[in-house]
Amino acid sequence: MDADASRPGILSQPQRLFIDGSYQSSSDDAEFPVANPMTGDVLYRCSSATVADVSRAIESAHAAYEAWSQTGPSARRALFLKAADILEGYLQGDAPEILRSEVSATESWVQVNIAASAGILRETAGLVTHIKGEIVPADRPGTTVLVAREPVGVVFAISPWNAPVNLTARAVACPLVCGNTVVLKPSEHSPKSQHLVVQALTEAGLPAGCLQFVPCSPERAPEVTEFAVKHAKVRRVNFTGSERVGTIIAGWAASCLKKCVLELGGKAPVVVCEDADIDDAVESIVFGGLANSGQICMSTERVLVHKSVMHEFRSKLLARVARLKCGNHLVEKDVSISGLITPASATRVLGLVRSAVNTGATLLAGDLQAGGPNQTVLRPHILEGVTRGMALYHQESFGPVLVLIEFGTDEEAVALANDSDFSLCASVFSRDITKALDLSRKIRAGSCHINGPTVYIEATLPNGGVGGSSGYGRFGGMAGVEEFTERKIISLARPGMKYAF
Amino acid sequence: MDADASRPGILSQPQRLFIDGSYQSSSDDAEFPVANPMTGDVLYRCSSATVADVSRAIESAHAAYEAWSQTGPSARRALFLKAADILEGYLQGDAPEILRSEVSATESWVQVNIAASAGILRETAGLVTHIKGEIVPADRPGTTVLVAREPVGVVFAISPWNAPVNLTARAVACPLVCGNTVVLKPSEHSPKSQHLVVQALTEAGLPAGCLQFVPCSPERAPEVTEFAVKHAKVRRVNFTGSERVGTIIAGWAASCLKKCVLELGGKAPVVVCEDADIDDAVESIVFGGLANSGQICMSTERVLVHKSVMHEFRSKLLARVARLKCGNHLVEKDVSISGLITPASATRVLGLVRSAVNTGATLLAGDLQAGGPNQTVLRPHILEGVTRGMALYHQESFGPVLVLIEFGTDEEAVALANDSDFSLCASVFSRDITKALDLSRKIRAGSCHINGPTVYIEATLPNGGVGGSSGYGRFGGMAGVEEFTERKIISLARPGMKYAF
Repeated sequence: MDADASRPGILSQPQRLFIDGSYQSSSDDAEFPVANPMTGDVLYRCSSATVADVSRAIESAHAAYEAWSQTGPSARRALFLKAADILEGYLQGDAPEILRSEVSATESWVQVNIAASAGILRETAGLVTHIKGEIVPADRPGTTVLVAREPVGVVFAISPWNAPVNLTARAVACPLVCGNTVVLKPSEHSPKSQHLVVQALTEAGLPAGCLQFVPCSPERAPEVTEFAVKHAKVRRVNFTGSERVGTIIAGWAASCLKKCVLELGGKAPVVVCEDADIDDAVESIVFGGLANSGQICMSTERVLVHKSVMHEFRSKLLARVARLKCGNHLVEKDVSISGLITPASATRVLGLVRSAVNTGATLLAGDLQAGGPNQTVLRPHILEGVTRGMALYHQESFGPVLVLIEFGTDEEAVALANDSDFSLCASVFSRDITKALDLSRKIRAGSCHINGPTVYIEATLPNGGVGGSSGYGRFGGMAGVEEFTERKIISLARPGMKYAF
Repeated sequence: MDADASRPGILSQPQRLFIDGSYQSSSDDAEFPVANPMTGDVLYRCSSATVADVSRAIESAHAAYEAWSQTGPSARRALFLKAADILEGYLQGDAPEILRSEVSATESWVQVNIAASAGILRETAGLVTHIKGEIVPADRPGTTVLVAREPVGVVFAISPWNAPVNLTARAVACPLVCGNTVVLKPSEHSPKSQHLVVQALTEAGLPAGCLQFVPCSPERAPEVTEFAVKHAKVRRVNFTGSERVGTIIAGWAASCLKKCVLELGGKAPVVVCEDADIDDAVESIVFGGLANSGQICMSTERVLVHKSVMHEFRSKLLARVARLKCGNHLVEKDVSISGLITPASATRVLGLVRSAVNTGATLLAGDLQAGGPNQTVLRPHILEGVTRGMALYHQESFGPVLVLIEFGTDEEAVALANDSDFSLCASVFSRDITKALDLSRKIRAGSCHINGPTVYIEATLPNGGVGGSSGYGRFGGMAGVEEFTERKIISLARPGMKYAF
């Protein structure tokens, strides 16, 4: 599949930076190649932003801030609703081709990405009249105290390739709706998928300067990112990505006392209790563990099963997984599990699995091999006997890997679930809702789903971790408004006040 | 004034650590001296916590967490209301003597500290039934979604000497009321003042382990603080103190992806418009700039005055300041301005002023000298002609220093007010409330007070900065609840759900 030969569409055109409302090359004309991970072929070349470009983008966003922050709520809402319709329309345009080619998205993953993104834009649009302040009773005589909510200024947003459209919509929608302007750095793997959000908002009428798009090559990313995070006119940072990079960004932000929202990795546990509906649990775990080949921060990674139902669960899970279609989604129909984002990623995941097997774990499913034209396709790998000494026990696999662990008591299940520095999400399967609620409260996570997959999010919900390797801060709903606005106390004293001296 | 000779009261007794509900020496029996800043005499010796002590305190707080977090709201409320009464009662006991001796608190500062602290405990008590979750409408068919609010676990709190009782009440009350347990590190200058809060809560019945008290010597503070901030069982950090230390703490917290609330310094500007009531402005600025000798994060440091009223304002301010009584509050009655916390502090403040004068600023009031028995008492220093090249223009003086700067237009006033990396608070003086509101919105600060002093806070209010040198995160009211709880999404799926594959 040669990009230039296949079709003369959007994927044969280079992607450029979008700064101050116009598409442009980088200041030094540098570009980097974006490849189709399934084939390894270069799809197109993308402009690689320099520090000078990002500096201009920040200045432009800063200049656009005053007018945008004062734009009335109805105008902002209308714009976001329009952008949602436009984005949804891309499903009939280039979006499926872009996502299929850039990030090996299956058909359902394309649908989910676009639908969820339109949902985020609509939900965020509805928040605009709920960014309210308060009047607070005051003890000081005659004093009126207001607590207003104000936007913060320029937000620097970094969003990843794995759910490229909706994680980008999430990174920019709430900051923008609150009246901030945004400089967006997409992943080097998926500039065009992520650009769809910029395009939809721009077509809907977002004024020039409000949303800047500054992709850059992986080599340049550290320098450019550090510059933006530390820039005095950047008031807040949001980042969705790896724990490793998130920790670096948190450090840069801390060095200049800047708040950030970090949604990092996960190692989501599920607890299958002895009274669980095993068929339901299997369905949820197959979806939660293997959707997008396990490349979701919320992916199920650890399956904790009560010993009395392990036999039944294991057989049903293996039978179900054996029926999944796994392969090259570019040439086969109805593929559920396509390839990972890079051959290196497949090598890393197989390395974790192989190391576990070499030190005593049992492989119940999976062949320890990468397939597909570019060695990115992994069959689901299911293991037992993974112990604390193994890297796979602790590290996020971010691939189609499930680890089964047996437990005897609820306390053991909670201890196992919490034996991780990740804290993003979890699930509990039980017919006893009281017990499930108890377990949900004891598991340390931002989300705990009862009888449903760990991969579950609605645009209304405050998604995020509770510190440690999953990061902190929340996207979504009013929690997002909390993150991207500041409270300002405004008090009015009456004349003639006297003080202590 | 020799501590041992003066009276056989609380100030002649050593202060010990309070760990797991019992007073104890440090693990290596180390102590440090606490001096009376006005006289330089050692008041008493205080146990100096080691890393081992802080480790035990954290483990004890962790062990106490489960029971405390499940204590019902009525019981928590009753306890805090009782503690407020007890703390208020200390005004008739040792509290005035402790604050006078440890931090050179004037009579009014003693009253304010205790009254504000009781107010914080009562206001926080009232929050306990408002720590509510939500039920969120969900698109996924048949799904119920709850968003609960949960405490976070052990909170490490560091509070300073300058308003030792109320900043300690603020550091521990909201975290505790939310169901967390707290390890408190007080300043080495004021262990006994800060311990009053621990004592009141303990007398009111706070269970052992919920609040630990671990003073330590300045030499040990970096090691002990880094250990606590990075401890895996410490889930959140709050710090009120200097920008320098706050930046270090933010870095430690970032390195382990932990959230923190940082209330750091200020360089509060006031804007005196041409239509201001000058007498009111003078009263507010004298109080806001000089209360507690300017040692308040909210202290007015920069006075921006419209050129048409500068003459009148300057004369009235100088006349008013000349009437203030300044001196040794231990021997004189009705002192408004007593000594700073250390002779080094006085030297630092005078250095900033002297350097400004030596490079062209004009001294309108003040004698460039420290007085009092221990060289800690500074008369108010008022300057004009302080420019951007001078350290005093940018740095927080944290002393009784006011800098007057003339402006011509509102835009100039806003630009001057925002020409600072601090962002804590500000004031605007004008009879035109519409204009004052406009200016308030344009000034970058967590609080802006119209026709009142920059030093103004109520227990209901979300006090804090908006990033940069003043830090981030908010104490007070429901904003405090936001900081010291986590949202947990709990979803309930219906049986028989089907997913994308």
